[in-house]
Amino acid sequence: MQQYFVKGKAGNPVIITDKDTIKHMFQVMRLVEDDEVVLVFEDGIKRLARVISSSNYQFDIVEELADHVEMPVQVTIASGFPKGDKLDLVTQKATELGAHAIWAYPADWSVVKWDGKKLAKKEEKLAKIALGAAEQSKRNVVPEVKLFEKKSDFLKTLTDFDKVFIAYEETAKAGELATLARELQTVKAGQKLLFIFGSEGGISPKEIDAFEAAGSIKVGLGPRIMRTETAPLYALSAVSYAMEMNQ
Amino acid sequence: MQQYFVKGKAGNPVIITDKDTIKHMFQVMRLVEDDEVVLVFEDGIKRLARVISSSNYQFDIVEELADHVEMPVQVTIASGFPKGDKLDLVTQKATELGAHAIWAYPADWSVVKWDGKKLAKKEEKLAKIALGAAEQSKRNVVPEVKLFEKKSDFLKTLTDFDKVFIAYEETAKAGELATLARELQTVKAGQKLLFIFGSEGGISPKEIDAFEAAGSIKVGLGPRIMRTETAPLYALSAVSYAMEMNQ
Repeated sequence: MQQYFVKGKAGNPVIITDKDTIKHMFQVMRLVEDDEVVLVFEDGIKRLARVISSSNYQFDIVEELADHVEMPVQVTIASGFPKGDKLDLVTQKATELGAHAIWAYPADWSVVKWDGKKLAKKEEKLAKIALGAAEQSKRNVVPEVKLFEKKSDFLKTLTDFDKVFIAYEETAKAGELATLARELQTVKAGQKLLFIFGSEGGISPKEIDAFEAAGSIKVGLGPRIMRTETAPLYALSAVSYAMEMNQ
Repeated sequence: MQQYFVKGKAGNPVIITDKDTIKHMFQVMRLVEDDEVVLVFEDGIKRLARVISSSNYQFDIVEELADHVEMPVQVTIASGFPKGDKLDLVTQKATELGAHAIWAYPADWSVVKWDGKKLAKKEEKLAKIALGAAEQSKRNVVPEVKLFEKKSDFLKTLTDFDKVFIAYEETAKAGELATLARELQTVKAGQKLLFIFGSEGGISPKEIDAFEAAGSIKVGLGPRIMRTETAPLYALSAVSYAMEMNQ
């Protein structure tokens, strides 16, 4: 069944006001009276809703649904700004794979420079991709998308997390492959994890120092070298496997 | 260091004959006498090699390298033919994530029809993507790319594997998330695994019956619904995490 995210708290009846949502509901899906959809408000609860009026965009809540597909931990991924449209792919796939937030920051070795208007436009585009992917993969929440203009602002957030992992290629080359699994065994439900990835050029030694000074841990993600847009997908799959499947 | 796959057995000296490889080596990378690269022959061993003659495309083998990044098991993924260029992405990412072979078959609910010349052309394109990704991710082998024209030929291969898993969305919906981890615990190094994925429409009940009749096991891949091109990336990451990192 078609699922839509709706801003704010659940009321009854519900009147949809977001233009894109209205367009998808009544022009693309051509909903009519008595059709049913799933609405998800900011409390993350899925609710079955029935169209009361297709001209007033009005719905009646039928019932709450028990369906919950979020990870037991909140995983944020943070990529160094990569070239081109790679963040589009990362955003779509990371949303399907359960990311709680999708961030990017200007890494020392990022080739692209995004700031001001360009950054805001990019962020808006990625937020739309996350919304669409969250609806399709039936998520309970839409991942937050955030592009940091200054690395210093990104660095300040590191202390907000229970664990911060640095996906570090040299660690992978050195064969240190047990750290992530060992660390994940100590993670408790409800905790906040952050995975930091470099841009195509990797993570600079200065950045490693800054991340480690804030308590981050270097981890390898398997013995193979992955592109910058592939590593976050591995990390999310690994956390899902460790915490959702391996019981 | 730049890595190239070379057909056949390792000799000494080596003369490169593949046109694309020659072009990349001597036009793109502009190798000259005494430059070093890594050559990987069909035995999967990486060898440091030095240019002897850039006009004759001749190399001298310096030494064998111990670097081995292949999974302890051979994982084949088989996707129902998906729409558009999705297999391009699957092939590139699955190669980075360690797939031993990347297959696709005409699923009951595949929308596209590929056969004859079109299939051969598609397969050739995907093989090039796999080769490029294998070089970039420093693999020891290039994954085999194979598009089956007939599903019956695909079905015949199932008995060649030690375990065949069906990535089945209904299983995920039913919350059966422990099967894959339980099964992977019984897998031994050197064994051959196959993961079967549907096309966008999923896997038909008739196909499920045929796969199960051949001994395949339905598994869920986490509680979220993934697009057809994302599920193989999850499966490969999960196997890597279970068998390469979780020790």
